[in-house]
Amino acid sequence: MESITSLQNSKVKKWTALHKKKERDNTGLFLIEGEHLIQEALKENIVETIITDEQCPFDFENIVQVSPQIMRKISDNVSAVHLIAVCHKLEKQPDMVSRALLLDGVQDPGNLGTLIRTAVSFSFDVVYVSEDTCDLYNDKAIRSTQGALFHMPVIRANLVDVVKQLQKDGFTIVATSLEESETMSEIPKSEHMGFIFGNEGQGVSKVLQHEANHRLRIEMHGFESLNVAVAGGIVMYQYRGK
Amino acid sequence: MESITSLQNSKVKKWTALHKKKERDNTGLFLIEGEHLIQEALKENIVETIITDEQCPFDFENIVQVSPQIMRKISDNVSAVHLIAVCHKLEKQPDMVSRALLLDGVQDPGNLGTLIRTAVSFSFDVVYVSEDTCDLYNDKAIRSTQGALFHMPVIRANLVDVVKQLQKDGFTIVATSLEESETMSEIPKSEHMGFIFGNEGQGVSKVLQHEANHRLRIEMHGFESLNVAVAGGIVMYQYRGK
Repeated sequence: MESITSLQNSKVKKWTALHKKKERDNTGLFLIEGEHLIQEALKENIVETIITDEQCPFDFENIVQVSPQIMRKISDNVSAVHLIAVCHKLEKQPDMVSRALLLDGVQDPGNLGTLIRTAVSFSFDVVYVSEDTCDLYNDKAIRSTQGALFHMPVIRANLVDVVKQLQKDGFTIVATSLEESETMSEIPKSEHMGFIFGNEGQGVSKVLQHEANHRLRIEMHGFESLNVAVAGGIVMYQYRGK
Repeated sequence: MESITSLQNSKVKKWTALHKKKERDNTGLFLIEGEHLIQEALKENIVETIITDEQCPFDFENIVQVSPQIMRKISDNVSAVHLIAVCHKLEKQPDMVSRALLLDGVQDPGNLGTLIRTAVSFSFDVVYVSEDTCDLYNDKAIRSTQGALFHMPVIRANLVDVVKQLQKDGFTIVATSLEESETMSEIPKSEHMGFIFGNEGQGVSKVLQHEANHRLRIEMHGFESLNVAVAGGIVMYQYRGK
Protein backbone atom coordinates (compact mmCIF):
# COMPACT_ATOMS: atom_id res chain seq x y z
CA MET A 1 0.00 0.00 0.00
CA GLU A 2 1.30 3.42 -0.95
CA SER A 3 1.92 5.88 1.85
CA ILE A 4 2.30 9.67 1.57
CA THR A 5 3.48 11.91 4.39
CA SER A 6 4.49 15.12 2.63
CA LEU A 7 2.00 17.94 1.99
CA GLN A 8 4.16 18.86 -1.01
CA ASN A 9 3.66 15.49 -2.72
CA SER A 10 2.53 16.04 -6.29
CA LYS A 11 -0.45 13.68 -5.95
CA VAL A 12 -1.69 15.61 -2.93
CA LYS A 13 -1.54 18.80 -4.98
CA LYS A 14 -3.32 17.16 -7.90
CA TRP A 15 -6.12 15.81 -5.70
CA THR A 16 -6.60 19.12 -3.88
CA ALA A 17 -6.90 20.89 -7.24
CA LEU A 18 -9.98 18.74 -8.01
CA HIS A 19 -12.06 21.14 -5.91
CA LYS A 20 -11.80 23.44 -8.94
CA LYS A 21 -14.17 22.87 -11.85
CA LYS A 22 -11.45 23.55 -14.42
CA GLU A 23 -9.27 20.79 -13.04
CA ARG A 24 -12.22 18.37 -12.97
CA ASP A 25 -13.02 19.22 -16.60
CA ASN A 26 -9.38 18.72 -17.65
CA THR A 27 -8.84 15.42 -15.89
CA GLY A 28 -12.32 13.86 -15.97
CA LEU A 29 -11.85 13.13 -12.25
CA PHE A 30 -13.72 14.27 -9.13
CA LEU A 31 -13.62 13.72 -5.36
CA ILE A 32 -16.12 12.15 -3.02
CA GLU A 33 -15.97 11.94 0.77
CA GLY A 34 -17.23 9.44 3.32
CA GLU A 35 -17.92 5.73 3.49
CA HIS A 36 -21.48 5.80 2.11
CA LEU A 37 -20.66 7.64 -1.12
CA ILE A 38 -17.53 5.57 -1.72
CA GLN A 39 -19.51 2.36 -1.29
CA GLU A 40 -21.96 3.53 -3.96
CA ALA A 41 -19.15 4.61 -6.29
CA LEU A 42 -17.38 1.24 -5.95
CA LYS A 43 -20.53 -0.51 -7.20
CA GLU A 44 -20.31 1.60 -10.36
CA ASN A 45 -16.60 0.83 -10.89
CA ILE A 46 -15.61 4.49 -11.13
CA VAL A 47 -13.17 4.69 -8.20
CA GLU A 48 -9.54 5.36 -9.15
CA THR A 49 -7.94 5.83 -5.71
CA ILE A 50 -9.11 5.65 -2.10
CA ILE A 51 -7.28 7.98 0.29
CA THR A 52 -7.45 7.47 4.06
CA ASP A 53 -5.71 8.34 7.32
CA GLU A 54 -7.23 5.34 9.13
CA GLN A 55 -7.85 1.66 8.51
CA CYS A 56 -9.60 1.40 5.13
CA PRO A 57 -12.89 -0.53 5.36
CA PHE A 58 -12.82 -1.40 1.65
CA ASP A 59 -11.00 -4.15 -0.17
CA PHE A 60 -9.60 -2.19 -3.12
CA GLU A 61 -6.43 -2.38 -5.22
CA ASN A 62 -5.44 1.28 -5.00
CA ILE A 63 -5.48 2.60 -1.44
CA VAL A 64 -3.16 5.42 -0.37
CA GLN A 65 -2.40 5.97 3.31
CA VAL A 66 -1.86 9.63 4.27
CA SER A 67 -1.43 11.69 7.45
CA PRO A 68 -4.43 13.44 9.08
CA GLN A 69 -2.82 16.74 8.05
CA ILE A 70 -2.89 15.73 4.36
CA MET A 71 -6.46 14.50 4.78
CA ARG A 72 -7.50 17.92 6.06
CA LYS A 73 -5.77 19.56 3.10
CA ILE A 74 -7.57 17.41 0.51
CA SER A 75 -10.97 17.51 2.21
CA ASP A 76 -13.48 20.24 1.59
CA ASN A 77 -15.22 19.57 4.87
CA VAL A 78 -14.84 21.46 8.13
CA SER A 79 -15.27 18.35 10.24
CA ALA A 80 -12.73 15.54 10.03
CA VAL A 81 -13.04 13.20 7.07
CA HIS A 82 -11.22 9.87 7.04
CA LEU A 83 -12.08 8.54 3.60
CA ILE A 84 -11.83 10.29 0.25
CA ALA A 85 -12.02 8.71 -3.18
CA VAL A 86 -10.86 10.02 -6.53
CA CYS A 87 -13.40 8.95 -9.15
CA HIS A 88 -13.78 9.00 -12.90
CA LYS A 89 -16.76 11.02 -14.11
CA LEU A 90 -19.70 8.84 -15.01
CA GLU A 91 -20.89 8.35 -18.53
CA LYS A 92 -24.15 6.58 -17.91
CA GLN A 93 -26.56 6.32 -20.81
CA PRO A 94 -30.29 6.00 -20.19
CA ASP A 95 -32.04 2.79 -21.23
CA MET A 96 -35.76 3.00 -21.85
CA VAL A 97 -36.91 6.49 -20.96
CA SER A 98 -40.38 7.21 -19.67
CA ARG A 99 -39.67 10.19 -17.38
CA ALA A 100 -37.09 12.90 -18.09
CA LEU A 101 -36.08 15.82 -15.85
CA LEU A 102 -34.75 18.95 -17.57
CA LEU A 103 -32.93 21.62 -15.54
CA ASP A 104 -32.59 25.03 -17.13
CA GLY A 105 -29.90 27.11 -15.43
CA VAL A 106 -30.16 25.82 -11.86
CA GLN A 107 -27.42 27.70 -10.00
CA ASP A 108 -27.30 26.29 -6.50
CA PRO A 109 -25.32 23.01 -6.21
CA GLY A 110 -27.50 21.95 -3.26
CA ASN A 111 -30.64 22.34 -5.37
CA LEU A 112 -29.07 20.43 -8.28
CA GLY A 113 -28.00 17.55 -6.04
CA THR A 114 -31.37 17.41 -4.29
CA LEU A 115 -33.25 17.40 -7.62
CA ILE A 116 -31.18 14.44 -8.85
CA ARG A 117 -31.74 12.58 -5.58
CA THR A 118 -35.49 13.16 -5.89
CA ALA A 119 -35.50 12.09 -9.56
CA VAL A 120 -34.02 8.71 -8.57
CA SER A 121 -36.59 8.27 -5.80
CA PHE A 122 -39.50 8.85 -8.19
CA SER A 123 -38.22 6.57 -10.97
CA PHE A 124 -37.12 9.19 -13.43
CA ASP A 125 -34.79 7.76 -16.08
CA VAL A 126 -32.59 10.65 -17.15
CA VAL A 127 -31.66 14.22 -16.18
CA TYR A 128 -30.69 16.79 -18.82
CA VAL A 129 -28.95 19.94 -17.60
CA SER A 130 -28.50 23.12 -19.62
CA GLU A 131 -24.99 24.42 -20.37
CA ASP A 132 -25.38 27.12 -17.71
CA THR A 133 -26.55 24.79 -14.93
CA CYS A 134 -23.94 24.53 -12.16
CA ASP A 135 -21.36 21.73 -12.14
CA LEU A 136 -22.61 18.32 -11.03
CA TYR A 137 -19.21 17.39 -9.62
CA ASN A 138 -19.08 20.33 -7.22
CA ASP A 139 -18.59 19.00 -3.65
CA LYS A 140 -21.91 20.34 -2.41
CA ALA A 141 -23.87 19.01 -5.38
CA ILE A 142 -22.41 15.54 -4.85
CA ARG A 143 -23.15 15.62 -1.12
CA SER A 144 -26.74 16.68 -1.80
CA THR A 145 -27.32 13.75 -4.17
CA GLN A 146 -26.53 11.39 -1.25
CA GLY A 147 -25.12 8.96 -3.79
CA ALA A 148 -28.08 9.17 -6.16
CA LEU A 149 -25.86 10.58 -8.90
CA PHE A 150 -24.36 7.13 -9.32
CA HIS A 151 -27.78 5.79 -10.29
CA MET A 152 -28.83 8.44 -12.78
CA PRO A 153 -27.59 9.42 -16.25
CA VAL A 154 -27.03 13.19 -16.18
CA ILE A 155 -26.44 14.73 -19.61
CA ARG A 156 -25.32 18.32 -20.28
CA ALA A 157 -26.93 19.56 -23.49
CA ASN A 158 -28.77 22.34 -25.29
CA LEU A 159 -32.26 21.98 -23.83
CA VAL A 160 -34.06 23.32 -26.90
CA ASP A 161 -32.54 20.47 -28.93
CA VAL A 162 -33.40 17.99 -26.17
CA VAL A 163 -37.04 19.15 -26.05
CA LYS A 164 -37.40 18.88 -29.82
CA GLN A 165 -35.90 15.39 -29.88
CA LEU A 166 -38.06 14.19 -26.98
CA GLN A 167 -41.19 15.55 -28.66
CA LYS A 168 -40.25 13.69 -31.86
CA ASP A 169 -40.00 10.56 -29.70
CA GLY A 170 -43.55 11.08 -28.47
CA PHE A 171 -42.85 12.87 -25.17
CA THR A 172 -45.18 15.45 -23.63
CA ILE A 173 -43.03 18.29 -22.30
CA VAL A 174 -44.19 20.29 -19.28
CA ALA A 175 -42.49 23.53 -18.19
CA THR A 176 -43.12 25.15 -14.82
CA SER A 177 -44.43 28.67 -15.18
CA LEU A 178 -46.44 31.26 -13.29
CA GLU A 179 -48.17 32.77 -16.33
CA GLU A 180 -50.80 31.25 -18.65
CA SER A 181 -50.48 27.92 -16.97
CA GLU A 182 -52.44 24.83 -16.00
CA THR A 183 -52.55 23.02 -12.66
CA MET A 184 -51.44 19.42 -12.19
CA SER A 185 -55.02 18.13 -12.19
CA GLU A 186 -55.43 19.60 -15.69
CA ILE A 187 -52.36 17.92 -17.20
CA PRO A 188 -52.95 14.18 -17.55
CA LYS A 189 -50.28 11.58 -16.86
CA SER A 190 -48.98 9.85 -19.95
CA GLU A 191 -46.41 7.20 -20.75
CA HIS A 192 -43.63 9.55 -21.85
CA MET A 193 -43.19 12.87 -20.10
CA GLY A 194 -40.44 15.45 -19.56
CA PHE A 195 -40.50 18.22 -16.92
CA ILE A 196 -38.52 21.46 -17.08
CA PHE A 197 -37.52 23.41 -13.96
CA GLY A 198 -35.64 26.67 -14.15
CA ASN A 199 -33.21 29.04 -12.56
CA GLU A 200 -33.81 30.05 -8.91
CA GLY A 201 -34.44 33.68 -9.81
CA GLN A 202 -35.74 33.71 -13.39
CA GLY A 203 -37.50 30.36 -13.71
CA VAL A 204 -37.67 28.50 -17.03
CA SER A 205 -36.49 30.58 -20.01
CA LYS A 206 -39.15 31.98 -22.37
CA VAL A 207 -37.95 29.95 -25.34
CA LEU A 208 -38.33 26.65 -23.45
CA GLN A 209 -41.71 27.66 -22.07
CA HIS A 210 -42.76 28.30 -25.64
CA GLU A 211 -41.47 24.93 -26.90
CA ALA A 212 -43.17 22.98 -24.11
CA ASN A 213 -46.56 21.30 -24.63
CA HIS A 214 -47.87 22.49 -21.25
CA ARG A 215 -47.02 25.22 -18.79
CA LEU A 216 -47.65 24.03 -15.25
CA ARG A 217 -48.24 26.01 -12.07
CA ILE A 218 -48.33 24.58 -8.56
CA GLU A 219 -51.42 25.85 -6.74
CA MET A 220 -50.43 28.01 -3.82
CA HIS A 221 -51.86 30.62 -1.56
CA GLY A 222 -50.11 33.37 0.24
CA PHE A 223 -46.42 33.70 -0.36
CA GLU A 224 -46.37 32.35 -3.96
CA SER A 225 -42.80 31.19 -3.94
CA LEU A 226 -41.23 27.77 -3.69
CA ASN A 227 -37.64 26.61 -3.70
CA VAL A 228 -36.94 24.89 -7.06
CA ALA A 229 -36.01 21.57 -5.41
CA VAL A 230 -39.28 21.59 -3.47
CA ALA A 231 -41.29 22.43 -6.60
CA GLY A 232 -39.43 19.64 -8.40
CA GLY A 233 -40.30 17.20 -5.62
CA ILE A 234 -44.00 18.01 -5.74
CA VAL A 235 -44.22 17.61 -9.51
CA MET A 236 -42.00 14.52 -9.76
CA TYR A 237 -44.02 12.83 -7.02
CA GLN A 238 -47.28 13.57 -8.84
CA TYR A 239 -45.99 12.24 -12.17
CA ARG A 240 -43.65 9.59 -10.77
CA GLY A 241 -42.55 6.73 -13.04
CA LYS A 242 -43.10 3.06 -12.44
CA MET B 1 -27.55 60.25 10.17
CA GLU B 2 -24.97 58.42 12.21
CA SER B 3 -21.73 57.51 10.48
CA ILE B 4 -19.13 54.94 11.58
CA THR B 5 -15.67 54.58 10.06
CA SER B 6 -13.74 52.58 12.65
CA LEU B 7 -13.67 48.78 12.62
CA GLN B 8 -13.09 48.98 16.38
CA ASN B 9 -16.37 50.81 17.03
CA SER B 10 -18.32 49.01 19.77
CA LYS B 11 -21.52 48.86 17.69
CA VAL B 12 -19.66 47.16 14.84
CA LYS B 13 -18.39 44.57 17.30
CA LYS B 14 -21.85 44.05 18.76
CA TRP B 15 -23.44 43.61 15.33
CA THR B 16 -20.75 41.20 14.13
CA ALA B 17 -21.27 39.10 17.25
CA LEU B 18 -24.88 38.51 16.17
CA HIS B 19 -23.63 35.77 13.84
CA LYS B 20 -23.31 33.71 17.03
CA LYS B 21 -26.41 32.02 18.40
CA LYS B 22 -25.46 32.83 22.00
CA GLU B 23 -25.35 36.54 21.26
CA ARG B 24 -28.69 36.40 19.44
CA ASP B 25 -30.23 34.56 22.40
CA ASN B 26 -28.83 37.12 24.86
CA THR B 27 -29.90 40.22 22.96
CA GLY B 28 -33.05 39.05 21.18
CA LEU B 29 -31.60 40.59 18.02
CA PHE B 30 -30.61 39.10 14.66
CA LEU B 31 -29.21 40.25 11.30
CA ILE B 32 -30.73 40.17 7.84
CA GLU B 33 -29.08 41.13 4.55
CA GLY B 34 -30.34 42.59 1.30
CA GLU B 35 -33.13 44.88 0.17
CA HIS B 36 -35.86 42.24 -0.21
CA LEU B 37 -35.58 40.83 3.31
CA ILE B 38 -35.33 44.30 4.86
CA GLN B 39 -38.44 45.43 3.03
CA GLU B 40 -40.34 42.45 4.46
CA ALA B 41 -38.97 43.10 7.96
CA LEU B 42 -39.97 46.78 7.84
CA LYS B 43 -43.59 45.75 7.21
CA GLU B 44 -43.47 43.77 10.45
CA ASN B 45 -41.95 46.68 12.43
CA ILE B 46 -39.08 44.63 13.76
CA VAL B 47 -36.15 46.63 12.32
CA GLU B 48 -33.95 48.36 14.91
CA THR B 49 -31.13 49.69 12.69
CA ILE B 50 -30.34 49.71 8.98
CA ILE B 51 -26.62 49.65 8.13
CA THR B 52 -25.37 50.59 4.66
CA ASP B 53 -22.28 51.69 2.75
CA GLU B 54 -24.36 53.23 -0.06
CA GLN B 55 -27.44 55.39 -0.48
CA CYS B 56 -30.19 53.81 1.64
CA PRO B 57 -33.36 53.08 -0.38
CA PHE B 58 -35.55 53.10 2.75
CA ASP B 59 -37.06 55.97 4.63
CA PHE B 60 -36.25 54.92 8.20
CA GLU B 61 -35.39 56.75 11.42
CA ASN B 62 -32.28 54.78 12.33
CA ILE B 63 -29.85 54.44 9.45
CA VAL B 64 -26.11 54.09 10.06
CA GLN B 65 -23.63 54.87 7.30
CA VAL B 66 -20.48 52.72 7.36
CA SER B 67 -17.42 52.07 5.15
CA PRO B 68 -17.36 49.12 2.71
CA GLN B 69 -14.67 47.60 4.93
CA ILE B 70 -17.02 47.61 7.94
CA MET B 71 -19.81 46.23 5.78
CA ARG B 72 -17.62 43.27 4.82
CA LYS B 73 -16.82 42.69 8.47
CA ILE B 74 -20.47 42.61 9.55
CA SER B 75 -21.70 40.61 6.56
CA ASP B 76 -21.70 36.85 6.49
CA ASN B 77 -21.73 36.79 2.72
CA VAL B 78 -18.80 36.25 0.36
CA SER B 79 -20.16 38.63 -2.24
CA ALA B 80 -20.57 42.32 -1.43
CA VAL B 81 -23.63 43.28 0.59
CA HIS B 82 -24.73 46.90 0.81
CA LEU B 83 -27.68 46.67 3.19
CA ILE B 84 -27.88 44.95 6.56
CA ALA B 85 -30.57 45.35 9.18
CA VAL B 86 -30.50 44.56 12.87
CA CYS B 87 -33.93 43.19 13.83
CA HIS B 88 -35.79 42.21 16.96
CA LYS B 89 -36.81 38.56 17.05
CA LEU B 90 -40.43 38.04 16.14
CA GLU B 91 -43.05 36.97 18.59
CA LYS B 92 -45.90 36.20 16.26
CA GLN B 93 -48.82 34.27 17.69
CA PRO B 94 -51.02 32.15 15.42
CA ASP B 95 -54.67 33.14 14.96
CA MET B 96 -57.03 30.40 13.86
CA VAL B 97 -55.02 27.28 13.22
CA SER B 98 -56.08 24.70 10.66
CA ARG B 99 -52.67 23.42 9.54
CA ALA B 100 -49.62 23.02 11.79
CA LEU B 101 -46.08 21.98 10.84
CA LEU B 102 -43.98 20.26 13.52
CA LEU B 103 -40.22 19.89 13.05
CA ASP B 104 -38.46 17.34 15.22
CA GLY B 105 -34.70 17.92 15.31
CA VAL B 106 -34.12 19.35 11.83
CA GLN B 107 -30.39 20.13 11.78
CA ASP B 108 -29.69 21.88 8.51
CA PRO B 109 -30.51 25.63 8.53
CA GLY B 110 -31.23 25.51 4.76
CA ASN B 111 -33.81 22.76 5.29
CA LEU B 112 -35.41 24.66 8.19
CA GLY B 113 -35.68 27.87 6.17
CA THR B 114 -37.02 26.07 3.11
CA LEU B 115 -39.65 24.22 5.18
CA ILE B 116 -40.91 27.52 6.65
CA ARG B 117 -41.02 29.11 3.18
CA THR B 118 -43.03 26.14 1.89
CA ALA B 119 -45.39 26.24 4.88
CA VAL B 120 -46.28 29.85 4.07
CA SER B 121 -46.89 28.98 0.41
CA PHE B 122 -49.32 26.20 1.32
CA SER B 123 -51.31 28.19 3.90
CA PHE B 124 -50.00 26.56 7.03
CA ASP B 125 -50.73 28.66 10.11
CA VAL B 126 -47.97 27.81 12.57
CA VAL B 127 -44.63 26.00 12.80
CA TYR B 128 -43.51 24.29 16.02
CA VAL B 129 -39.84 23.36 16.30
CA SER B 130 -38.37 20.97 18.88
CA GLU B 131 -35.73 22.21 21.33
CA ASP B 132 -32.99 20.47 19.32
CA THR B 133 -34.00 21.91 15.93
CA CYS B 134 -31.36 24.33 14.63
CA ASP B 135 -31.64 28.08 15.25
CA LEU B 136 -34.15 29.94 13.09
CA TYR B 137 -32.07 33.13 13.20
CA ASN B 138 -28.99 31.51 11.68
CA ASP B 139 -27.97 33.46 8.53
CA LYS B 140 -28.53 30.52 6.21
CA ALA B 141 -31.92 29.65 7.69
CA ILE B 142 -33.10 33.24 7.24
CA ARG B 143 -31.82 33.39 3.66
CA SER B 144 -33.60 30.12 2.85
CA THR B 145 -36.94 31.42 4.14
CA GLN B 146 -36.73 34.18 1.50
CA GLY B 147 -38.61 36.44 3.90
CA ALA B 148 -41.30 33.89 4.70
CA LEU B 149 -40.27 33.83 8.35
CA PHE B 150 -41.83 37.26 8.76
CA HIS B 151 -45.21 35.78 7.83
CA MET B 152 -45.21 32.72 10.03
CA PRO B 153 -45.36 32.18 13.79
CA VAL B 154 -42.51 29.81 14.69
CA ILE B 155 -42.67 28.46 18.23
CA ARG B 156 -39.93 26.46 19.97
CA ALA B 157 -41.50 23.90 22.29
CA ASN B 158 -41.58 20.35 23.55
CA LEU B 159 -43.29 18.57 20.66
CA VAL B 160 -44.84 15.84 22.79
CA ASP B 161 -46.71 18.55 24.72
CA VAL B 162 -47.66 20.28 21.46
CA VAL B 163 -49.02 17.06 19.94
CA LYS B 164 -51.10 16.31 23.04
CA GLN B 165 -52.53 19.83 23.12
CA LEU B 166 -53.34 19.81 19.39
CA GLN B 167 -55.07 16.44 19.72
CA LYS B 168 -57.16 17.83 22.59
CA ASP B 169 -58.11 20.67 20.24
CA GLY B 170 -59.36 18.16 17.67
CA PHE B 171 -56.29 17.92 15.42
CA THR B 172 -55.29 14.81 13.51
CA ILE B 173 -51.52 14.40 13.83
CA VAL B 174 -49.55 12.75 11.04
CA ALA B 175 -45.90 11.72 11.44
CA THR B 176 -43.70 10.74 8.51
CA SER B 177 -42.31 7.25 8.89
CA LEU B 178 -40.97 4.37 6.83
CA GLU B 179 -42.37 1.60 9.00
CA GLU B 180 -45.98 0.52 9.57
CA SER B 181 -47.25 3.46 7.62
CA GLU B 182 -50.05 4.58 5.32
CA THR B 183 -49.82 6.45 2.02
CA MET B 184 -51.33 9.89 1.44
CA SER B 185 -54.32 8.46 -0.39
CA GLU B 186 -55.16 6.46 2.76
CA ILE B 187 -55.09 9.44 5.15
CA PRO B 188 -58.09 11.70 4.50
CA LYS B 189 -57.88 15.48 4.61
CA SER B 190 -59.62 17.03 7.57
CA GLU B 191 -60.18 20.51 8.91
CA HIS B 192 -57.45 20.45 11.56
CA MET B 193 -54.20 18.64 10.84
CA GLY B 194 -50.61 18.69 12.07
CA PHE B 195 -47.64 17.12 10.24
CA ILE B 196 -44.37 16.04 11.87
CA PHE B 197 -41.08 15.85 9.94
CA GLY B 198 -37.88 14.69 11.56
CA ASN B 199 -34.13 14.85 11.67
CA GLU B 200 -32.20 14.41 8.40
CA GLY B 201 -30.59 11.17 9.58
CA GLN B 202 -32.95 9.65 12.13
CA GLY B 203 -36.37 10.87 11.02
CA VAL B 204 -39.18 11.49 13.50
CA SER B 205 -38.45 10.22 17.02
CA LYS B 206 -40.17 7.01 18.14
CA VAL B 207 -42.12 8.73 20.92
CA LEU B 208 -43.68 11.24 18.49
CA GLN B 209 -44.45 8.51 15.95
CA HIS B 210 -46.23 6.70 18.74
CA GLU B 211 -48.25 9.78 19.79
CA ALA B 212 -49.32 10.58 16.22
CA ASN B 213 -52.70 9.47 14.86
CA HIS B 214 -51.19 8.36 11.54
CA ARG B 215 -47.76 7.37 10.28
CA LEU B 216 -47.35 8.47 6.67
CA ARG B 217 -44.97 7.22 3.99
CA ILE B 218 -44.40 8.85 0.62
CA GLU B 219 -44.60 6.22 -2.13
CA MET B 220 -41.25 5.85 -3.84
CA HIS B 221 -39.38 3.43 -5.97
CA GLY B 222 -35.70 2.87 -6.21
CA PHE B 223 -33.56 4.99 -4.03
CA GLU B 224 -36.02 5.35 -1.12
CA SER B 225 -34.62 8.56 0.25
CA LEU B 226 -35.84 12.14 0.10
CA ASN B 227 -34.45 15.35 1.49
CA VAL B 228 -36.66 16.43 4.43
CA ALA B 229 -37.56 19.78 2.80
CA VAL B 230 -38.65 17.96 -0.38
CA ALA B 231 -40.71 15.44 1.63
CA GLY B 232 -42.25 18.37 3.53
CA GLY B 233 -43.13 20.08 0.25
CA ILE B 234 -44.88 17.01 -1.15
CA VAL B 235 -46.96 16.47 1.99
CA MET B 236 -47.78 20.14 2.63
CA TYR B 237 -48.88 20.53 -0.99
CA GLN B 238 -51.19 17.51 -0.71
CA TYR B 239 -52.78 18.71 2.54
CA ARG B 240 -52.50 22.44 1.87
CA GLY B 241 -54.73 24.83 3.83
CA LYS B 242 -57.24 27.24 2.38
